[in-house]
Amino acid sequence: MAETARGNGALRGGIDLGGTKIQAVVISRSHQVVGGARRPTPTDGGPDAVAAALTSAIGEAAAQAGVTPRHLLGVGVGSPGSVDVEAGTVSQARNLPGWEGTYPLGERLERALGCPIRLGNDVQVANIAELRLGAGHGRGSFLGVAWGTGIGGSVVLDGRLWRGRGAAGEIGHMVVVRDGAPCTCGRRGCVEAYAGRAAMELAARRRSDRGEKTVLFRLMKQEGRPRLTSGVWARALEEGDALARDLMDGAVAALGAGIASAVNLLDIGTVIIEGGLGVRMGQPYADRIAGAMRPHLFLPDRAPDVVVAQLGDLGGAIGAALQVSARR
Amino acid sequence: MAETARGNGALRGGIDLGGTKIQAVVISRSHQVVGGARRPTPTDGGPDAVAAALTSAIGEAAAQAGVTPRHLLGVGVGSPGSVDVEAGTVSQARNLPGWEGTYPLGERLERALGCPIRLGNDVQVANIAELRLGAGHGRGSFLGVAWGTGIGGSVVLDGRLWRGRGAAGEIGHMVVVRDGAPCTCGRRGCVEAYAGRAAMELAARRRSDRGEKTVLFRLMKQEGRPRLTSGVWARALEEGDALARDLMDGAVAALGAGIASAVNLLDIGTVIIEGGLGVRMGQPYADRIAGAMRPHLFLPDRAPDVVVAQLGDLGGAIGAALQVSARR
Repeated sequence: MAETARGNGALRGGIDLGGTKIQAVVISRSHQVVGGARRPTPTDGGPDAVAAALTSAIGEAAAQAGVTPRHLLGVGVGSPGSVDVEAGTVSQARNLPGWEGTYPLGERLERALGCPIRLGNDVQVANIAELRLGAGHGRGSFLGVAWGTGIGGSVVLDGRLWRGRGAAGEIGHMVVVRDGAPCTCGRRGCVEAYAGRAAMELAARRRSDRGEKTVLFRLMKQEGRPRLTSGVWARALEEGDALARDLMDGAVAALGAGIASAVNLLDIGTVIIEGGLGVRMGQPYADRIAGAMRPHLFLPDRAPDVVVAQLGDLGGAIGAALQVSARR
Repeated sequence: MAETARGNGALRGGIDLGGTKIQAVVISRSHQVVGGARRPTPTDGGPDAVAAALTSAIGEAAAQAGVTPRHLLGVGVGSPGSVDVEAGTVSQARNLPGWEGTYPLGERLERALGCPIRLGNDVQVANIAELRLGAGHGRGSFLGVAWGTGIGGSVVLDGRLWRGRGAAGEIGHMVVVRDGAPCTCGRRGCVEAYAGRAAMELAARRRSDRGEKTVLFRLMKQEGRPRLTSGVWARALEEGDALARDLMDGAVAALGAGIASAVNLLDIGTVIIEGGLGVRMGQPYADRIAGAMRPHLFLPDRAPDVVVAQLGDLGGAIGAALQVSARR
């Protein structure tokens, strides 16, 4: 495989930089994944530590594909925060450690990897992958909801990503409870305040500290995780943990209200649930979100399809790789 | 003027059918208003009574322009409810009396007026007028918010109305308080539950019945109105009525949260406040809505412009007329 891959001279790298984990892939000309690697997102050390982890992850993925990064046509990165594609910088990536300012991620990676780097917005690139290769294929318009550490979103209208003035898609910061719970963004009552993995972890910690029983933090330690990952949440729910169930119910309700609001505004027939939690919880939770949308839909008889991203948790990395031109 | 108007053979009629009032206009080829008439929307008698009032209003507007309706190129109607343009029917116009079913409004008006009738969605036609002739002119993308008996909306992206599957724009039924106040649509916590004129009137009535002091209903009677019209609200506020002020504060807060949510999703740089209440309350309230949006905006430094519809309360009727082809 590696020989063929090297032979066709068209390998592209892609990295999905998430608040919890880093996923790197190398894809062939025909979009097959020929190498992959995963790292936890560093919890300290700031942008430099994150850049080092990205370099190491794509190096491992490239090695699996039988090449070194400098042989790649390029590496795309899907990043949170405010991405300046031309300048190659990432600003205000609040879900990453110590990343309040502007960091020249493109330049750093280009120097470390020796190949062209193309930055993009994490949620938008995941959506492009779903649009071209996954659940969005053949559907003209859809709303992508990235349910992970934060809640991102993308609006695809008639087959094209709607960017607005550059920052469209913040479904996680649509208001579902005016004057509601504090959000990680500093505002109140956003969808993300109830459904973002980071916000849910804060709420679990607070309630656990106040004496509520939960297996969440024991499972986290058992698995050697620094955070309540999607897997930890899933296992706590399997064990019937009441606190996990209650917080997850709140997340589903908030997602339902927020997505229904977006559907009432745009009358789009498809919702694709993406992101670490979304993919991990799978179609049963997509169905629960559809149920939570129903009481808020202006036209409940024309409720949209709510489906899970087909590319699973590789979608972000594959979409990042698709940003790299397929020709030298 | 009437001679010229008749001479150019290109007069078009337009009717804005609102939950509170009916506004008819006749416009010239160059979009000048050459005739106009207004009626209160009948509170009983069902769709037949409404059709009769529309006929009478456009008749008066045409007479002002020196013609009879059958000399018009056609009459456009902007209607609430679910409009089937091809069939010429209006269904489920909940803000109109006794209009739960489907009514062949196009056919009835065509028979009564003797000219072609073109139905459209009330909010969408008002937006088309603002886009072509008003505050939206020269702005590629904007969100139109029709603040009236209900709360409607339109999404204009890159100069084109986004219709979704036909029913886009229901900003009034975006959720701002999950499990919040009951809405006139039967759901809970919608923007319209707090900011729609009809919902505000119900709330005022309930609180007045419970003993809260207000001048609202006295003013309504003094002015011989069957409802708390926009003018009644404006005068009560001028008189410093505490109940009116409190309800209007709630309306502004709900509009702010809902519109901010829409802006976070679409990242649009312009919001146009339309509708009876919107036009009556004017730019000071558009500014208040902008202020109420601010705490919820994901990018407060790039807050959109919030402006009042330039065509005032004739926008809906002019937009309805623009639906009629300018050529015979």
